[in-house]
Amino acid sequence: MSETDQALDRLHEYLRESAVLQTCRGLLNWDQETYMPEGSAELRGRQLALLSGIAHRRSAADQLGDLLEDAEEKLNGADPESPAASNVREAKRDFVQARKIPAELVEEHAEVTTLARRAWAQARADNDYPHFQPWLRRIVKLSRRFADALGYEEHAYDALLDQYEPHAKTSEVRALFEVVSAKLADLLARIVDSGRKIDTSSLHGQFDPASQHAFAQEVTSAIGFDFARGRLDRAVHPFCTGLGPWDVRITTRFNEKWFPDGLFSALHEAGHGLYEQGLAGEQFGWPMGSACSLGIHESQSRLWENTVGRSRGFWTHFYPKAQANFSSLKNVPMDQFYAAINEVKPSMIRVDADEVTYNLHVMLRFELEQALLTGDIDAKDLPEAWNTRFEEIFRIRPQNDTEGCLQDIHWSAGLFGYFATYTLGNVYSAQLYEKAQQDLGDLDEQFAKGEFAPLRTWLNEKIHWQGRRFAPTRLIERVTGRPPAPEPLIASLEAKYGAIYGV
Amino acid sequence: MSETDQALDRLHEYLRESAVLQTCRGLLNWDQETYMPEGSAELRGRQLALLSGIAHRRSAADQLGDLLEDAEEKLNGADPESPAASNVREAKRDFVQARKIPAELVEEHAEVTTLARRAWAQARADNDYPHFQPWLRRIVKLSRRFADALGYEEHAYDALLDQYEPHAKTSEVRALFEVVSAKLADLLARIVDSGRKIDTSSLHGQFDPASQHAFAQEVTSAIGFDFARGRLDRAVHPFCTGLGPWDVRITTRFNEKWFPDGLFSALHEAGHGLYEQGLAGEQFGWPMGSACSLGIHESQSRLWENTVGRSRGFWTHFYPKAQANFSSLKNVPMDQFYAAINEVKPSMIRVDADEVTYNLHVMLRFELEQALLTGDIDAKDLPEAWNTRFEEIFRIRPQNDTEGCLQDIHWSAGLFGYFATYTLGNVYSAQLYEKAQQDLGDLDEQFAKGEFAPLRTWLNEKIHWQGRRFAPTRLIERVTGRPPAPEPLIASLEAKYGAIYGV
Repeated sequence: MSETDQALDRLHEYLRESAVLQTCRGLLNWDQETYMPEGSAELRGRQLALLSGIAHRRSAADQLGDLLEDAEEKLNGADPESPAASNVREAKRDFVQARKIPAELVEEHAEVTTLARRAWAQARADNDYPHFQPWLRRIVKLSRRFADALGYEEHAYDALLDQYEPHAKTSEVRALFEVVSAKLADLLARIVDSGRKIDTSSLHGQFDPASQHAFAQEVTSAIGFDFARGRLDRAVHPFCTGLGPWDVRITTRFNEKWFPDGLFSALHEAGHGLYEQGLAGEQFGWPMGSACSLGIHESQSRLWENTVGRSRGFWTHFYPKAQANFSSLKNVPMDQFYAAINEVKPSMIRVDADEVTYNLHVMLRFELEQALLTGDIDAKDLPEAWNTRFEEIFRIRPQNDTEGCLQDIHWSAGLFGYFATYTLGNVYSAQLYEKAQQDLGDLDEQFAKGEFAPLRTWLNEKIHWQGRRFAPTRLIERVTGRPPAPEPLIASLEAKYGAIYGV
Repeated sequence: MSETDQALDRLHEYLRESAVLQTCRGLLNWDQETYMPEGSAELRGRQLALLSGIAHRRSAADQLGDLLEDAEEKLNGADPESPAASNVREAKRDFVQARKIPAELVEEHAEVTTLARRAWAQARADNDYPHFQPWLRRIVKLSRRFADALGYEEHAYDALLDQYEPHAKTSEVRALFEVVSAKLADLLARIVDSGRKIDTSSLHGQFDPASQHAFAQEVTSAIGFDFARGRLDRAVHPFCTGLGPWDVRITTRFNEKWFPDGLFSALHEAGHGLYEQGLAGEQFGWPMGSACSLGIHESQSRLWENTVGRSRGFWTHFYPKAQANFSSLKNVPMDQFYAAINEVKPSMIRVDADEVTYNLHVMLRFELEQALLTGDIDAKDLPEAWNTRFEEIFRIRPQNDTEGCLQDIHWSAGLFGYFATYTLGNVYSAQLYEKAQQDLGDLDEQFAKGEFAPLRTWLNEKIHWQGRRFAPTRLIERVTGRPPAPEPLIASLEAKYGAIYGV
């Protein structure tokens, strides 16, 4: 074995052990949301804190610095986009960032967000924003300290965004979002003005949870989620946990009286799950063995949930099976069902929003969290700012903060800079899908025949196997031939909803 | 705070962190047997090895040695049976033992037993003892090396036994077992010679697994297993995992056509679970916050499974509920059911054995594993030795090794010295129950009224809260007024089966 390979092997071994440790933490997180007895909450906090501490020490250890330096030296002159060079570059990036964050900031953040999450849950339940306000103020301050510790050139927000979407710049994301925002607001206005009402009564009915579970399992399995390397369980808030490509666990929730909730959440999480199962096992521990960014991750979930899961082809294949499983659907024509699952309607809650309004919900948060961070909005003025801006965008106004600025958990968990990745995901998703169509032919036709492998293997090869080899924008550019752009998203939504609403 | 308290606090904090780490490993083990996707087996091995490695280093670290020394010094002159002194004494014992075992022996043991378990499973499935034989030979050698590393005075077997039953001596256990063995062989002979046949047809039928699960949950909850701090799931081999008293997970398996399997396994594991839930939470991390020994643990499981769960009082309360749940039992009189769940019958398989023959199965293993360890029996001669001795004891002969010496997983997992704790558990159980009756009055009468709290809280106070404060024999002596003795077990079985079989 060459000296270079030896240096890389030593580094990989170190990183693999860190990754194994992370999977232990991942299992504790999964269990907490699925099967953990309530009495174990405090112990679970200690378990997670302990493993996080060990993991943080490993990620910033001198030994790792030495291994990285050695590998960098040996790779001197290699193609910077080669797998080996990319792995070492990204591992170095993680190391440098880990060293920048003082342990006491990590600890304070963990402590404050634990308490803030509890305060938020209470405030949301009681519609009592003032109860959460002091916590939000503390979290904004902590976020600024994180940004300062990490460093940035233009905006403090850049440093936070970079945690979720590596190398993304606020100014670029903002420019992209402004186009998306304007075009979607226009499309939404036309849809609302069309006066066309879609009959969604078919989605209300009696849908036995066990049958929904079995159906969700059948559907996610059919699109390629591998149950020998994964599971589907129930959780209050659906999520996906990847413990390497060998153990990927998705969750959903079933609403007995409303069909879309359970299945589309399952499809969304299966999209994340296909990404995690698609990661290269031999790269486990290396940056190339993990997901590129949250935006790219979201592109996969939104693609399977919406672009595939709400398409005509998909339901041409699955609707007869759905009708056989759920008597409430037996006498509902396919066209009516298809329109119902694609209804566009301004509503208060982001997670229930349709494809068109969803991104407008994200824009609102993207604006407001920057204003909070710069101090342009004080925590005490958030509800008013939220409601006013919401009304400008949607022409409806939240009646209380529970359906307004208290609806999302993110800020209470300290996740500033996270929301943007949802819309980036939609943008990437449309751009990837457009390219996949060019490469693979009429996908809708394939779905109608139950053929999902071509699209899945295309994503495996183009996206999943690359891991963190390229920065997100570079990855999109390499796969589609151009940097992330709003046009494919706008065009696809215009085409689809133009047809449904005749606008 | 006094200097002594400070020294104890520092030690407790160290030990508590080790205990938290062990609970992470515990969750990985539980998940492996319940919900883990098959594809994750290799990763799970790495996760467990990593956490075991970290835990082993912590358990033998110089820092721990210093903390122990400091605490010992400060406690100089304290009552050696006081909680504080007991905690430090037992923690020191663990530390000294951990230091004696070289890391490479731990690693070799882990590697060999992983492979041996696989070979054993294959050998058992194929009834192919020679496939397992070389592995057994390696494990016997490894066990000797463990014994040598740990040290012993009389028998190498002492060192192994001590791992599961602290301070137990082979000679004392053997003397106890000889009495138990002779008396039970005599009772069994009388039962067999009586010619009385018990009708067990009522236990065969259709028992819906979901209903069995619900019933098992109802029954274990009624005896006091707290589902806010625990769970009941299904697993191929029933077990109990305790992650501190706040999170105790028991498992069972349901046989659709045979009633006793699922419920009595659940009761057995709930007995273990009540012990784990009964441990003192504020002692978590200290030896007093963990179970005394495997024998004492087994005394709790066997007590709830057999002494309580197969009693007339218990079924006076639960039989109407069982009949309401399972139509197969609807027309079966209580007396017939009671006799059926208490049938005594020589059989090949330990885990299916009744209360009388069970201990004879254990004796056989206790003898044979000592003979393997001393070299009196070579691995290649095990099947012949097993079958011959089995026939002497039970008057029936295994037809193949799968129902003979290949039936148990223990030896393939390196668990030499473990089997003895099963019979010790039965001995302790009977002795504790006799004393509980003296203290609490007619327990059978209480069970008939659904009152299980008196017995449970008595066990909480006498056994569970003591943790490892006393050695097992000392604990039994303190609670019952005399050291472990065979008479209560023999007397209780004589009385019960004398009545059922008229012998």
